[in-house]
Parts: sequence; C-alpha cells; structure tokens
Amino acid sequence: MSDILQQLTRVLEARRHADPGSSYVASLHERGMDAILKKVGEEAAETIIAAKNGDRGQVIHETADLWFHTLVMLSHQGLSSEDVLAELERRFGTSGIEEKAARK
Amino acid sequence: MSDILQQLTRVLEARRHADPGSSYVASLHERGMDAILKKVGEEAAETIIAAKNGDRGQVIHETADLWFHTLVMLSHQGLSSEDVLAELERRFGTSGIEEKAARK
Amino acid sequence: MSDILQQLTRVLEARRHADPGSSYVASLHERGMDAILKKVGEEAAETIIAAKNGDRGQVIHETADLWFHTLVMLSHQGLSSEDVLAELERRFGTSGIEEKAARK
Amino acid sequence: MSDILQQLTRVLEARRHADPGSSYVASLHERGMDAILKKVGEEAAETIIAAKNGDRGQVIHETADLWFHTLVMLSHQGLSSEDVLAELERRFGTSGIEEKAARK
Repeated sequence: MSDILQQLTRVLEARRHADPGSSYVASLHERGMDAILKKVGEEAAETIIAAKNGDRGQVIHETADLWFHTLVMLSHQGLSSEDVLAELERRFGTSGIEEKAARK
Repeated sequence: MSDILQQLTRVLEARRHADPGSSYVASLHERGMDAILKKVGEEAAETIIAAKNGDRGQVIHETADLWFHTLVMLSHQGLSSEDVLAELERRFGTSGIEEKAARK
Repeated sequence: MSDILQQLTRVLEARRHADPGSSYVASLHERGMDAILKKVGEEAAETIIAAKNGDRGQVIHETADLWFHTLVMLSHQGLSSEDVLAELERRFGTSGIEEKAARK
Repeated sequence: MSDILQQLTRVLEARRHADPGSSYVASLHERGMDAILKKVGEEAAETIIAAKNGDRGQVIHETADLWFHTLVMLSHQGLSSEDVLAELERRFGTSGIEEKAARK
C-alpha cells in the first residue's frame, strides 16, 4: 500500500522537468517556491475546514491535496518523501520513549 | 522505506487509547479535534517558514511535524494514511492524464 | 485615518446583500463560511510568504487582503470590526500590565 | 472607536524596544520574524476553527489575536496599520468599482 508514496515521489521527479503547459507539477515548479507554498497554506486551511465539517470524503480529498503539495515542495527543495519518512522513523521507530521526540 | 508510514499508522492507533499523561498522541486525542487542527495549522505555517529559509534540515523537521499531526487528525476522524494514499493512487496511478485530477 | 476601518465595515454591510454577480463581497457571502475561511487561510499564508520575502509593498498588499477577508468573516458571523477593536482595547487600553492579556 | 487601532499602533511601537523579559511585544521582536510569523499562522488557524465552531466570543478573541500579531509583524517590518488602512482605502474609498481591486 505505502509503495504508493514511493511511486508518487518518482512520478513527481519525472514531471518536474516536463512541459509546464501540460503538467501541473511542472507548472508549479516553473512558478516557483512561493506559488508552491501558497498551495500548501491553502490546502492546510481546507484540511482544517474539512475536519471541522466531519466529512470523511472531504477530509481524504483535502489531506491528499495537502500531502501532494508538500511532496512538490520537498522536490523543489531537492528533498523527497524518503527524507521525511526517515525523520519520522528516527522519532518513532526505535524505542518506547519515541513520542518525546515528537514534542516541541 | 515507505513501510514506515504503515508502522507509524499502527503506532498511532495503539497510542490513541494510551494514558494521556504519558503519550503525546493520547493527549492530543483527549484534547480533541480543535487542539489537533490547531497543531496542523501551526506546523503548516512552520513548514512554509522553513521552506522560505531554504534550510533543508528545518524543512524535513517541520514537514515531519505536519505529516505527523495530519496522521493524528486522520486517526481522530476514524481514517488512516491508507485512505489518503489510496486517493493519491487513484489520481496518479492509472493514466497519463492523472495530473488533471490533482487540479482543483 | 483609522475611520477607514469603520467606513469599510459599513461598505461591507451594504454589500452583503448586493447581487453576487456584481459584488465580490456578496459572492463570498453566497458561497458561505467555508469559502470565506479558505480565503482567510490562503491570505494568511501569502502574508507569511510576503514577510519572509521582506517585500514591503507585498506585505501591505497581502495584509490588506487578510484583514479584508477577516472583516467579511466577521460580517458573515454577525460581528464587525468594532467587536474586535473593543477586545483589543480591553486588553491594551487600561493599564501598564495590558500585555499579559495578550498572552495565551 | 477605531482610534483604538492608532493607539494600539503607538503602544506597539513604544513596546518594541522595551525589556523582552517584561514585554510580550518586545520578546516577539527579539525572537525575530520567524517567531512572529509562526504566531500569525497559528492564530489564523485558530480563527478558522473558531468560525467553524460558530462561537462568537471565540471568533472575537481569535481574530483579535490574529490582528494583534499582524500588527507586530508590520512593526517588525517597519510598517504600521496606517499603511494597510491606506491600501484598503485606495481599494474601497474612491468609486463604485472598488471591489474589483479586492479580487485577485
């Protein structure tokens, strides 16, 4: 199931240098980091609104939008989902006191 | 690598009903959806700030925080990462026109 | 100078029931609170991005957008800028220890 | 009523160089723009949550927090509420077609 994230990461890299006229991913990269981050903020707000509505389909849709645009942001920064997953594993994968690492 | 997300999803479910005094995840669920969503909004802002700083370590850290709190939100709603990954697969996995689905 | 906020509040009330086809304010009200709040979240993200860019003109523009959409949100909720200004006066106007009230 | 915004702007300027140990405003300036913007994002999320709750007192409280932290951000940038109000007046004060200017 979670191979999807790896596949999506590969698709995003392949699209990065595609024609901005035909690829939404390429058009985001061409418009630059500010355009990508505007979408991250917008989708975060829509995720919050969906969760307050308690509408499960809307929550799935908006969270997918939010994750998708954070993946594009990572790619634009020369990073990938693997870097974030490794960080989450570092925090959660090793011991019974892992949650401390998640706290600020 | 991406099994991490499945493992994390299982950890989050196990913690959901733990003692809020010793588990950050359980304390978030106890405080309720508004507290969880406040963290989603806060971490989205910090992810944007990190990306503008161009600090790769900070971007990884803040994106991990953002994904983590969206996973807690999904769990609080009776959903999981698999629901969101299935939505992303539906959009991206099937054809050459997949990006249309990512557009609003 | 700050009478502008009162004038704007009156304009927003007058527009609330205008034709949504010709008034942006009326169209926001017609689309409802979720559409208004999506704009609040979007403009907050753009304000953060503008401030990180250190571009004073962009900061003024995006903060104006953010305040404008919070004013529409207040109006949709049956509130106005006066309610928020009264709260700010309550916190700041009465004593030398007023900042305590601004803390969480 | 709206003189409150001018008074608050003056208070914020006076506090800017106060002792960070005793002034919340001074401590925000000392911690820098990222800390201020983190608060702007956090309060925007809380404003959205409050509006979804339909809790008028909570909406007033969170909008006041949001406006307050945008005022600190403006001050940190060498700007003030007057700059934003002048922009809003420019858009809304002069003609019957003012709403066009508010659209993206």
